[in-house]
Amino acid sequence: MHAVSHPEQNKSRSAADIDEFAFIERIRRKAGQRPSSAEALSSEATLSKGIGDDAAVIRQHDGRDTVITTDMLVEDVDFRREQTEPRLLGHKALAVSLSDIAAMGARPRWALMSIGVPQQIWDSDFVEELYEGIFELADRFDVKLIGGDLSLAPEKIVIDCAVLGECSTGNAIMRSGAKPGDRLYVTGSLGASAAGWRLLERGARLENKGEADSETRAVNELLLRNLRPEARVGWGLVMGRERLATAMIDLSDGLSSDLHHLCQESLVGAVVNAEQLPIDPLLIRVCGRRALDPLMLALHGGEDFELLCAIPPEKAARLPKKVDGVPISCIGEIKEATDGIQVAEGPRVWRLDAGGWEHFRREG
Amino acid sequence: MHAVSHPEQNKSRSAADIDEFAFIERIRRKAGQRPSSAEALSSEATLSKGIGDDAAVIRQHDGRDTVITTDMLVEDVDFRREQTEPRLLGHKALAVSLSDIAAMGARPRWALMSIGVPQQIWDSDFVEELYEGIFELADRFDVKLIGGDLSLAPEKIVIDCAVLGECSTGNAIMRSGAKPGDRLYVTGSLGASAAGWRLLERGARLENKGEADSETRAVNELLLRNLRPEARVGWGLVMGRERLATAMIDLSDGLSSDLHHLCQESLVGAVVNAEQLPIDPLLIRVCGRRALDPLMLALHGGEDFELLCAIPPEKAARLPKKVDGVPISCIGEIKEATDGIQVAEGPRVWRLDAGGWEHFRREG
Repeated sequence: MHAVSHPEQNKSRSAADIDEFAFIERIRRKAGQRPSSAEALSSEATLSKGIGDDAAVIRQHDGRDTVITTDMLVEDVDFRREQTEPRLLGHKALAVSLSDIAAMGARPRWALMSIGVPQQIWDSDFVEELYEGIFELADRFDVKLIGGDLSLAPEKIVIDCAVLGECSTGNAIMRSGAKPGDRLYVTGSLGASAAGWRLLERGARLENKGEADSETRAVNELLLRNLRPEARVGWGLVMGRERLATAMIDLSDGLSSDLHHLCQESLVGAVVNAEQLPIDPLLIRVCGRRALDPLMLALHGGEDFELLCAIPPEKAARLPKKVDGVPISCIGEIKEATDGIQVAEGPRVWRLDAGGWEHFRREG
Repeated sequence: MHAVSHPEQNKSRSAADIDEFAFIERIRRKAGQRPSSAEALSSEATLSKGIGDDAAVIRQHDGRDTVITTDMLVEDVDFRREQTEPRLLGHKALAVSLSDIAAMGARPRWALMSIGVPQQIWDSDFVEELYEGIFELADRFDVKLIGGDLSLAPEKIVIDCAVLGECSTGNAIMRSGAKPGDRLYVTGSLGASAAGWRLLERGARLENKGEADSETRAVNELLLRNLRPEARVGWGLVMGRERLATAMIDLSDGLSSDLHHLCQESLVGAVVNAEQLPIDPLLIRVCGRRALDPLMLALHGGEDFELLCAIPPEKAARLPKKVDGVPISCIGEIKEATDGIQVAEGPRVWRLDAGGWEHFRREG
C-alpha cells in the first residue's frame, strides 16, 4: 500500500507528479484517523493504524491483529504489456502486496484480486495465465485467493490486489517506531529492479533460450528482478515474531524515498553509509558499459521490495545471517530529526533527497 | 463482489460477453477452495467461504467472523465521466461494496479505496470531491477508510473498493442455504436504477435547479437511483442478527441473473409472482411515454442493490415491516431445482432466463 505508483515508471507523465503524501495527509485528517497506537479498544475489532503505513492494522480480540493492504497496477504506468508475460504480471501484482504485509512483520494469509481487462485480452489465455502466476506465488506462501472482481476495461489492464495478513496483537511493525541510535538494515540487494526497468525501457526483452551467453543471462536476470520481484515474507515473519525492528518499510519507491517516509513517520533523521549498501553484483557487472550508475540505482531505484528496518544495537546480535537464503546488511544509523537524512560516501557527507531518482533520471 | 461488472452497461462491447461464472468456477477449482462450511478450524483464523458468494468469510476466534469483498468500477464500462459527478461516483464506489457486505448479513466496518486517475483528473478537484462522496457515505454507517492506493492511470478512471465487515461467528448468510418452500423476499423497489441508466444513455443529465417541474424531478430521481445507489446496510444487519434468511444476495446484475446465482448455489428453483414485484412507482410514471417496460426493467435491470433473500415461512412473521424506512416484499417462493426458475404473470407461467436483459436490450 503506497500512495502512488512507482514514480520512476511514470516516464511519460508530466513533471507535475502526484504529491501523494500531502494528499494522503489531507485524507487522513478528513478521515479523522487516530494516531498509530490503539488505546480504548472497543468490544469489537478496532482500527489500530490506518492510512500512512504499509498496511492497516485491525485489532482482533483473540491475541491476533489483522493486517490489510491494497495495491493497484495500471498498464502503461506500472507495467507495459509488451515487456512482460501474464504469469509474471500475476506474480508481481500479488508480490507487491505481499511485500507490504511483510513490511508489517505479519504473515500473509488471504488475497483478493480485482482485475479489469479489455475484451481482446479476455478472449485470449492472458487472464488464465495471469492467475497461474498468482496461484504459483500464493501457494508458495500458503496464501488463499478468497475473492475479487473480474471486469471488462476499455483499453488498459488494471489489477488491484488486496492481501490480508495476521500477526500477534501489537506485534505489527509500523514506520513510526525508529529511535536515534537504531541501526538501519536492509534485506537482500539493491538496484537490480531499477536497472532491469531501465533496460526494458531501452528495448531489452526476456530471452527464454537456454544457451544464452553469460552477459545475456545477466541482463535476463535483471529484467526478471523488475518483472518478477520477490516479497521478503520470511524476513517479515522473523522481524515480527522476534520483535527485532522498531520500524520497517518495504522499498517500493526506492531507498531514498522510503527512508524519508520512515524518518517522517518516526520523526527522526538517518545517515546511510554508501560503502555498506548491498548493491546487486549483477548490476555492477552490467552497468558499466550501459552508462548506469549502480550507486544511484541503489539509492533511488524503485521496486526492490527489500525490507528497510531500524534495529536497536542490542538486538542486532539476534539477527539471523540469512532467511530463505536472503542476507541482511547494516547500511547506516538512525539520527535525530535535526540531522536530516544524509549519505556518507568516504569523506563526503551529502544530503539524500527523496525522489532523487527524478533528478537522476533527467541527468541519466 | 461480483464476477464481472454489470453486463447491461457494457453496451459498447461485443456479444462475446465474459462468461464470468464458468471462469470463477475454474478459478475456484484451481484455488482448491473448500466448500462453504468451515470444519476443522485451525488455531488461526480460517477461510470459511471464498470465491462465489457476495463476500468471503474469515472465521476469527472470538465469536466473530470477518467478511470481505472487493468491487471495481471502470470508466466507460461501469460509469461515464460526463454522466456523473465526482461525489456521486465516490458514493457509488463505496455503496457497491457495502451492498455486498449487507448481502452477507454483516456490519461494514472498514474500507480501502484504490483509485487510478489520469493526470488531468489529478490536476482538478475531482479526486478530492470523490473522497468527499466516499466519506459522506462511510460516516453514515460508521465505516472507517483505513487505506488504499492512489495511482496515475493512462486515460480512464478506475476505482477498486474493498470493504471489511463483521458478524457473529456462523451468522454470515450465504447464497447457498435456500430450501424449497422458503419465501422469496426483496427489499425496497425494483427497476429504477436500470431506468435511470437508460435515460442517461439517451442523453438525460442531472438537473440541479430547484424549480424543476415534477416530470423533471422524477427523471432526476431515476438518474440518481443509478448514480447514487443505496446499500441496504440496515436490512442486512437485521437479517444477520435475527437469522431470518437462509440465503441472500444483493441485486447488482439484476433480479433474473441474481436469482439464478442464488438458486445455482442453493441447488433449488424458484417462482416469481410478477404481480408482487415492487416495481418502483417513479418508473411506472416515467416509463410509459419513453417506451420502457417497467416489468422488464424490474426483472432484468441491474444495479438496484436491493437484497434478495429466502425466508422460511415460519420466520416471515418476524420480519419488520420496514428498516430505515425501506419496506420488504414477498415476491415468490423457492422451489425444487427441477422446477427451474419461472415467472407467474396472471395465468401465464414462463421461464425466467438469466441475462434476459441482453435479449431485452436488443429488442428495446
